[in-house]
Amino acid sequence: VEPAYLFQSTLAPNDLQRLFREVRTTSERLAEPLSDADATVQSMQDASPSKWHLAHTTWFFEAMVLKPHLPDYSDFDDGFSFLFNSYYETLGARQPRPRRGMITRPSLNEIFAYRTYVDAAIDTLLSSQPPRDVTELVELGCHHEQQHQELLLTDILHLFAQNPLHPGYRDPALVAVETEPAPPLSFSAFAGGIYEVGHGGPGFAFDSEGPRHRALVEPFRLADRLVTNAEWIAFIEDGGYRNSLLWLSEGWAKTLADGWTQPLYWERRDGEYWTMTLRGSQPLDPTAPVCHVSFFEADAFATWAGARLPTEAEWEIASDGLSLDGNLLDTDRLRPKPAAARANGLQQMFGDVWEWTRSPFTPYPRFRAVEGAVGEYNGKFMSGQFVLRGGSCVTPPGHIRASYRNFFPAHTRWQFSGLRLAQDA
Amino acid sequence: VEPAYLFQSTLAPNDLQRLFREVRTTSERLAEPLSDADATVQSMQDASPSKWHLAHTTWFFEAMVLKPHLPDYSDFDDGFSFLFNSYYETLGARQPRPRRGMITRPSLNEIFAYRTYVDAAIDTLLSSQPPRDVTELVELGCHHEQQHQELLLTDILHLFAQNPLHPGYRDPALVAVETEPAPPLSFSAFAGGIYEVGHGGPGFAFDSEGPRHRALVEPFRLADRLVTNAEWIAFIEDGGYRNSLLWLSEGWAKTLADGWTQPLYWERRDGEYWTMTLRGSQPLDPTAPVCHVSFFEADAFATWAGARLPTEAEWEIASDGLSLDGNLLDTDRLRPKPAAARANGLQQMFGDVWEWTRSPFTPYPRFRAVEGAVGEYNGKFMSGQFVLRGGSCVTPPGHIRASYRNFFPAHTRWQFSGLRLAQDA
Amino acid sequence: VEPAYLFQSTLAPNDLQRLFREVRTTSERLAEPLSDADATVQSMQDASPSKWHLAHTTWFFEAMVLKPHLPDYSDFDDGFSFLFNSYYETLGARQPRPRRGMITRPSLNEIFAYRTYVDAAIDTLLSSQPPRDVTELVELGCHHEQQHQELLLTDILHLFAQNPLHPGYRDPALVAVETEPAPPLSFSAFAGGIYEVGHGGPGFAFDSEGPRHRALVEPFRLADRLVTNAEWIAFIEDGGYRNSLLWLSEGWAKTLADGWTQPLYWERRDGEYWTMTLRGSQPLDPTAPVCHVSFFEADAFATWAGARLPTEAEWEIASDGLSLDGNLLDTDRLRPKPAAARANGLQQMFGDVWEWTRSPFTPYPRFRAVEGAVGEYNGKFMSGQFVLRGGSCVTPPGHIRASYRNFFPAHTRWQFSGLRLAQDA
Amino acid sequence: VEPAYLFQSTLAPNDLQRLFREVRTTSERLAEPLSDADATVQSMQDASPSKWHLAHTTWFFEAMVLKPHLPDYSDFDDGFSFLFNSYYETLGARQPRPRRGMITRPSLNEIFAYRTYVDAAIDTLLSSQPPRDVTELVELGCHHEQQHQELLLTDILHLFAQNPLHPGYRDPALVAVETEPAPPLSFSAFAGGIYEVGHGGPGFAFDSEGPRHRALVEPFRLADRLVTNAEWIAFIEDGGYRNSLLWLSEGWAKTLADGWTQPLYWERRDGEYWTMTLRGSQPLDPTAPVCHVSFFEADAFATWAGARLPTEAEWEIASDGLSLDGNLLDTDRLRPKPAAARANGLQQMFGDVWEWTRSPFTPYPRFRAVEGAVGEYNGKFMSGQFVLRGGSCVTPPGHIRASYRNFFPAHTRWQFSGLRLAQDA
Ligand SMILES: [Fe+3]
Ligand SMILES: [Fe+3]
Ligand SMILES: [Fe+3]
Ligand SMILES: [Fe+3]
Repeated sequence: VEPAYLFQSTLAPNDLQRLFREVRTTSERLAEPLSDADATVQSMQDASPSKWHLAHTTWFFEAMVLKPHLPDYSDFDDGFSFLFNSYYETLGARQPRPRRGMITRPSLNEIFAYRTYVDAAIDTLLSSQPPRDVTELVELGCHHEQQHQELLLTDILHLFAQNPLHPGYRDPALVAVETEPAPPLSFSAFAGGIYEVGHGGPGFAFDSEGPRHRALVEPFRLADRLVTNAEWIAFIEDGGYRNSLLWLSEGWAKTLADGWTQPLYWERRDGEYWTMTLRGSQPLDPTAPVCHVSFFEADAFATWAGARLPTEAEWEIASDGLSLDGNLLDTDRLRPKPAAARANGLQQMFGDVWEWTRSPFTPYPRFRAVEGAVGEYNGKFMSGQFVLRGGSCVTPPGHIRASYRNFFPAHTRWQFSGLRLAQDA
Repeated sequence: VEPAYLFQSTLAPNDLQRLFREVRTTSERLAEPLSDADATVQSMQDASPSKWHLAHTTWFFEAMVLKPHLPDYSDFDDGFSFLFNSYYETLGARQPRPRRGMITRPSLNEIFAYRTYVDAAIDTLLSSQPPRDVTELVELGCHHEQQHQELLLTDILHLFAQNPLHPGYRDPALVAVETEPAPPLSFSAFAGGIYEVGHGGPGFAFDSEGPRHRALVEPFRLADRLVTNAEWIAFIEDGGYRNSLLWLSEGWAKTLADGWTQPLYWERRDGEYWTMTLRGSQPLDPTAPVCHVSFFEADAFATWAGARLPTEAEWEIASDGLSLDGNLLDTDRLRPKPAAARANGLQQMFGDVWEWTRSPFTPYPRFRAVEGAVGEYNGKFMSGQFVLRGGSCVTPPGHIRASYRNFFPAHTRWQFSGLRLAQDA
Repeated sequence: VEPAYLFQSTLAPNDLQRLFREVRTTSERLAEPLSDADATVQSMQDASPSKWHLAHTTWFFEAMVLKPHLPDYSDFDDGFSFLFNSYYETLGARQPRPRRGMITRPSLNEIFAYRTYVDAAIDTLLSSQPPRDVTELVELGCHHEQQHQELLLTDILHLFAQNPLHPGYRDPALVAVETEPAPPLSFSAFAGGIYEVGHGGPGFAFDSEGPRHRALVEPFRLADRLVTNAEWIAFIEDGGYRNSLLWLSEGWAKTLADGWTQPLYWERRDGEYWTMTLRGSQPLDPTAPVCHVSFFEADAFATWAGARLPTEAEWEIASDGLSLDGNLLDTDRLRPKPAAARANGLQQMFGDVWEWTRSPFTPYPRFRAVEGAVGEYNGKFMSGQFVLRGGSCVTPPGHIRASYRNFFPAHTRWQFSGLRLAQDA
Repeated sequence: VEPAYLFQSTLAPNDLQRLFREVRTTSERLAEPLSDADATVQSMQDASPSKWHLAHTTWFFEAMVLKPHLPDYSDFDDGFSFLFNSYYETLGARQPRPRRGMITRPSLNEIFAYRTYVDAAIDTLLSSQPPRDVTELVELGCHHEQQHQELLLTDILHLFAQNPLHPGYRDPALVAVETEPAPPLSFSAFAGGIYEVGHGGPGFAFDSEGPRHRALVEPFRLADRLVTNAEWIAFIEDGGYRNSLLWLSEGWAKTLADGWTQPLYWERRDGEYWTMTLRGSQPLDPTAPVCHVSFFEADAFATWAGARLPTEAEWEIASDGLSLDGNLLDTDRLRPKPAAARANGLQQMFGDVWEWTRSPFTPYPRFRAVEGAVGEYNGKFMSGQFVLRGGSCVTPPGHIRASYRNFFPAHTRWQFSGLRLAQDA
């Protein structure tokens, strides 16, 4: 058999250089509002310190690209591979994940120096007309770093939410909420049949997005917009969090064990809902999409609403031909945005919130992980997680695709995750 | 929409009565070797006491059939619904699962009296020509009890395995092991295409086995026999339990956390492998199918062997037209049996060990749970579990089908679970 | 230095034989109401199965007396030392304590056979005029078994309390409660000074009760009776369980973590307090001593009452010259009894409930554990526990002494433990 | 009864002002080597961030002194009482202890501003000739802050020890180890009898150090120096950590559960012992006192050595008349120092390492906590802890006294804790 390959790049050398610089600069811009302390603390096991994100993405270039492919490259610091390897068994021992927040030194400034050092080495490498397998690794490293840009913001929100003073990552002035109600819920219908799904063409994609393959679906309908906060409040007020019959058994147990009564970050003050955001604590916008709910909550809501979550194939089929524009990181809104009051067909498919699907994250037919460290990127996580689609308000533009498969465990709430309803047709 | 329905029974009234009596008698026969103490203790949270199995299956008839459908039926004992409801939220509060082993009273004899009382009432009911929805519930109750027969034996093995004296459920005389080696591993090839899978025709099936629907599969190959103990020893000796690269990330974490180095119940004595069985501790039979491995182990083994686990659709397609005969509970062997040395095509598809598939347990297209308590039977477990197929050496004959979907969490080892390899073709 | 010695026996050979027979018979009598299942289940880590108590006390004679001192003695069963050794590192490996309830076999009847076998061997031994160090071990074994008699009842109550059917160990007919109120609380005063405390004279005592030594105490006052249920209800109603200022910091944390709002086994039904007893669930007797409270609760109560717990020296000084009679096991009441309405001075010093003292269980001056297995009896538990004095309604008569030091961790509630107030004078 | 009082101050107003300034300045000097990140992270539940220590000690003055006693004082920041109250239930809700490390903001600089603000207010207050109960609270606040100075260093060492790069709090150049062996172990003898112990005279002491009272002790001998690292290595090499018979039962369980094989912070590299210190990782000095051992380890060592730990009364009696000089914080050594090779009588009684005693931390006879928040200072911790005496190399001079009772749970290892042997005489 042929070895599995990463992907088929379509980037000209100059474009790769531009992408690399832009991605690296963006990360540093995202870190600007953070103090050394902000960037060091780990607020829970699932989250990582900002400093770690900044260093780990740099280590990725060092370990995957520079050390194997740039002659005479010497490590910025011998100890960093131990500190900043995430989960690559192939690449040696590492700081245990739950203890990433113990690393008060190196400081944030030293990490910036590390980034500069590695950037220069990548520049050198890219200037030397490296072979395609090397440039592909650099391109992979850019998309890897974009993933961590979203995580950096997601994790910082979680950290700041632990602080009783509710600090804002960005200007915490109160933001006016939409007063017009969301458009009524409508559904678009899709025919059953055999469709091609998964990444197939040239251009970057993660290995788990392929191989492109045929999928058989029954006729279905997909909601034209995301579920809103107002609809979620109706679910709460109808006893949704207290009615076990709406819930998957695992989800119900988690609800009880963790005492869930509302989405993560919601808070009730004097009868009003507030929610912690990257702009500090803000009054809840009823028209905006609900965010920070788990798969279990999304599934229970869908059952309550007489609907279900879409499969990932349905979502991908429905997204065919839609623009990738949306409320992504570049709008700088940093929180989900209400749907347009008047619109035809599907809205909010890209950006705003990651949409839980009912599909467990499993390998596509004939998927094989590539050899070596890169092969550990996705394949080994194909159990115990559900797929989310469409990106969020903290996803960097250029990072999202119709075939993009994000995945998290079903109880996860700290991601910018919401839902869109589906139905059998 | 039409209400979802249970299934379309094909049993004549007399056959139902015969089935009911046979199932009820079998349970009691299975309990014969057990003392009151054996039948009372709960060896871990996932397992239940035998007494509980005997009473819960009886309660199922009482709660689902007699109380709603037999006029003037009065409970055997008011407190039993609390004690023996498993997980039906619709049917009221219940003893927490991890505390099922605290119930030293009622005694095993009192549970037998409870069974007799309920049996008589069901007899009365069945003699009164009840409507189809009632007889269907009785039939469901019989299949439910058969599931618990397998669990009773599975759980008793687990309990006895905790006893340093290694008591045997059945005659613990040492059993001679096969000396002829297993047949070499061969594969049968299957064409890709669209197949119908799931239960469709008349006759009993659980709700999760339907609706029958079309499935698209790529060409694949399926091993003609199960993986053997000897092959598993080769995996161990090649460092399979120490090589993280073979494992799903979740599985590797579990391996380390629980210190897995071999299948559950294996023990090394003076260089020989022994294993705990329902006939006490026995020397490991190298030719017999490996048993008591988790999904994670099965998946790692398949990766090590250059293969993969089949999907449940592949397994079901391959089983088309095969006899349901096999090493089931009625052979009274009570442990898996080596494959025939000479055979054509697929062996051991039914019986011996449940075969892990790579398919998460998810709803089939257009699946809807039925209304009421019965609707809680399967649907609410459709997250966080993997499908197993084919039954085991402790599955009652008549209980297994090609469309049968068993499911357990990926780390589960105490079931009679093994594996069969598959490959892309 | 001289080797530490066990104690200086005062029993004539005949008396030892009589004591041995009586103790052994009593254990079997206590087991009479129990089924094999009752005697097998372990209701929590701190409790042991009745069967285990019956076997472990027998093993004690086998391991400490028969094997070292009866020539040609052969074990009843090779596997029993592993099963029934409690914590004697000197005497080999053993079943982990939390897993004592897994041992469904040997059955209760087999344990009785084991007892008979060992009894015969001890008879043989005692008939052979054994040396004093051997008869002392037999005497120690008798007192050891008496301790386990109390534990057997304590643990059975805990087990039955887990059963929603509330079975009674003894006839569960409702018992009339005292209608006359308890006598008003009065205190007896004691002068400060130097007293001798600890076991000194001849006759049996555990090693931890000696050496007899001088203790310096300040003048103090000791309540003439135990704290009652009615007084405890007043504490509850005054918010005692919600006022952190009354509690030791550790105790307050435990209160919150475990949700304590009343003594163990109390239940509120229709505004009335009930409590689980060895006679099943019974209405709470307001005049009877409060029972099943932890040290932390006792200490908080004393603070609330403007008093304190006595030290163990104070308790022992006050008990000087008092009769050891009281509501012990032989009254067969099996629960604490109200104080006499009219009495002079200290009541209820022996029996009813173990009285928490404020004294941590530490070695007396010049205490040294004896060599060998017997040295593990008490010495190694001298950290993290508090001393209780006076015995309870399930303590066998003949087992309690003024110098007797019982000890349990401060959060322990399942013992028959209550309190008596003290004050500085 | 008279209300309990704090203590009887002997400080002239000027001296109090000087003490206050010196203590406040010292804290800031100790924080100099720390970055904002260093000062923010909490390395475990028992430890606190440096920033928290700096702020909490400031809050103590604000909450105990300024708000009740300085008219028109207004809080520096409303939210700080929630953030920096440690455990005073009387003073309101607070950030849960295990989440002190989430507070990345306020920054270290803001905490310094908080300190300046409060310092100015205290200056104002002290200039106004406040009554004695107020100056006593200021004096208490100074001693409180000294305690936290030691904890700050202790906790920073723990934090840095979690970092695989082993950063040094102070210049991490390797320090030469003593080559001369420790003096042979000798003991000083003390007569039995009645002694006065506890704080009695005027001058500052914590409430738990009194009332001064009589204690009766038997003749004893106390080692002239602390146990050394070389002696501890002999204990290790003799199998001390593997021999259950040397250990208290609780300690043995902890040893197994946490895998103890050597003191905290020890590491073996190429056959040599290294240990983490405030000057980074350093080769172990065999002659220096062993440090970072738990009570359980100290007790096991003493048993192994044929000795025992002293009681706190013995220690205090032996320290009578000794100078309080020693290797305290002002030597800036920051680690324990070998005993002098030639010396008469007791050495190292003050400084170097806290010495575990065998005395549980219990109230002295007639101890009563004072009313109000200050009463929560010590009294509520009088269960589950053991007393340590003598101060350590990170105890500020002026803070230690012969009557000083430090206390920690028996498994605690991260304190600068070691031991001195005692024997019955
Ligand atoms: Fe990464
Ligand atoms: Fe069931
Ligand atoms: Fe015992
Ligand atoms: Fe403090």
